[in-house]
Amino acid sequence: MDFTLDTFSGLVENALASLEYPSVAPRLFDPIRYTLESGGKRIRPVLAVAVYSALAKADPADALNQAVAIELFHNFTLLHDDVMDRADIRRGRPTVHRKWNDNVAILSGDAMLTMATQQLTRGAGDRLADLLECFNTTAMEVYEGQQLDMEFENRDDVTIDEYLLMIGLKTSVLLGCACRLGAIMARADKAAADAFYRYGYSLGMAFQLRDDWLDTFGDPAVFGKEIGGDIVNHKKTWLLISARNAEPEDLPAILAEDLEPQETIAQVKALYERHHLGDLCQELALKYSAEAKMNLDNIDMDVEARLFFAGLADRASTRTH
Amino acid sequence: MDFTLDTFSGLVENALASLEYPSVAPRLFDPIRYTLESGGKRIRPVLAVAVYSALAKADPADALNQAVAIELFHNFTLLHDDVMDRADIRRGRPTVHRKWNDNVAILSGDAMLTMATQQLTRGAGDRLADLLECFNTTAMEVYEGQQLDMEFENRDDVTIDEYLLMIGLKTSVLLGCACRLGAIMARADKAAADAFYRYGYSLGMAFQLRDDWLDTFGDPAVFGKEIGGDIVNHKKTWLLISARNAEPEDLPAILAEDLEPQETIAQVKALYERHHLGDLCQELALKYSAEAKMNLDNIDMDVEARLFFAGLADRASTRTH
Repeated sequence: MDFTLDTFSGLVENALASLEYPSVAPRLFDPIRYTLESGGKRIRPVLAVAVYSALAKADPADALNQAVAIELFHNFTLLHDDVMDRADIRRGRPTVHRKWNDNVAILSGDAMLTMATQQLTRGAGDRLADLLECFNTTAMEVYEGQQLDMEFENRDDVTIDEYLLMIGLKTSVLLGCACRLGAIMARADKAAADAFYRYGYSLGMAFQLRDDWLDTFGDPAVFGKEIGGDIVNHKKTWLLISARNAEPEDLPAILAEDLEPQETIAQVKALYERHHLGDLCQELALKYSAEAKMNLDNIDMDVEARLFFAGLADRASTRTH
Repeated sequence: MDFTLDTFSGLVENALASLEYPSVAPRLFDPIRYTLESGGKRIRPVLAVAVYSALAKADPADALNQAVAIELFHNFTLLHDDVMDRADIRRGRPTVHRKWNDNVAILSGDAMLTMATQQLTRGAGDRLADLLECFNTTAMEVYEGQQLDMEFENRDDVTIDEYLLMIGLKTSVLLGCACRLGAIMARADKAAADAFYRYGYSLGMAFQLRDDWLDTFGDPAVFGKEIGGDIVNHKKTWLLISARNAEPEDLPAILAEDLEPQETIAQVKALYERHHLGDLCQELALKYSAEAKMNLDNIDMDVEARLFFAGLADRASTRTH
């Protein structure tokens, strides 16, 4: 088995492209095909097959159904989150509720969630109960994360701890779950499954904090999204919360002013730089990458698998897009 | 075991009231409690525990988790359907998206769907895969039914067969599934499980056609909803489709006129009566009740259980509210 991102993501892309859909109401599935063919990093399903492969030392295709399940779940949350956030663009294309309408995004999203559970059961055998326990617990946590994220929009006193809890629930647990599903399929012992879960969780934290950093300090030519979107939307990221803690008067004053977006971005960014918040955010991302790698030490696997997972952890906090 | 509606629905109400919710984001669960305490007929969970009880001749509480699962699923679809249909009132109270907002209804609905799957797994043991197979297949059919229902809104050529297919998917399969879950929990043989599924399916058809009838011909003092809502909303029910088939010119002409709601209702109702459509609709409902009862003949059970299920079948097509 080649332990490369391309190998695993190739397998995942093939599996997603060959999904079959019921045919009574075919239009229900157009938005699902549209969403799945829009790409994305496929990091969650890649983790599931890679963990399976590392632990079972077997054909990663054996865990592909569970990998597809986690990607379907992730894309279902995007469909519904985009309705809730009124987001227009996703992966460079109109979001489903913009291309069709809200009702289509809601109903096709529901269908994706059920398809995810269906996919999870395929080839599960006697591991089904464990897979479902992990999957459902994680799903509930992801909803709780989204709920907190929405509640934070109407609050000005969100703390850093609350923010880290929220991104942990909204993002990191799903990467942890992806790893655990692979471990369960491999019939790994509890210690290995737990260590891989924590690896995935820390990877998710590094990934999200790097995302916050990129949104302000990324290279517009490489990042793929406009820089400063979080600032313009007053999104309570690690950077913005830290800035309000550092400048409880100045930051709200800048945000309250009726400035051109570019001017708001420039002023907030200057405030971030005055307090070295970009560097501090990046340090925290690196700390989570290091934590992720530490968890690998306790798992028995081949050197090429170890290097693969360590590489992913490093990339989470150093990627440019 | 007392084979009465009150016994079974009492068990179900208790189980719903003692559901436990995670506590990280408690506001996510307020709409779920609100929805579940709004009541409803509980026909689906009652079917699950009654079928279990009839076939296993054991404590119906053994199948309560699966009964709760089906009621959670049903209520999740109501939350999302009410957003899609812009419905303001449900069971005499503001719908969730009206009391809170669309986002709350979407996200809490998602959480209800996952809670339903969690509930399904409890106490399932080696029946888990069969339960999930039935539950997930049915869920996909329900979404397909809702998709067709929405597509029908923009079509004027919906046939009676298409309508029956749609209500079969949107409503009847879930009653069939409720019965099958009870049968699976009772470790019944395939013939009994299939017969009970068909019983539930036919019961659902009778129930829905009686619903169409009540919406036009019900007694306003008893029905609990305003009479004529379907007509005012041009909802493609069995009655409206049959009326258009009978009067391809007249019916569209009435609906196109800018009349007071009461006047539209009176004119369409007169047209229904001219063609005896109320009676024909009711006859069809009775036919489905008879079909439901026929399926009971092939199932081995005590006489009191048989009378209970036959009574439900009769009630589906003769109820007044």
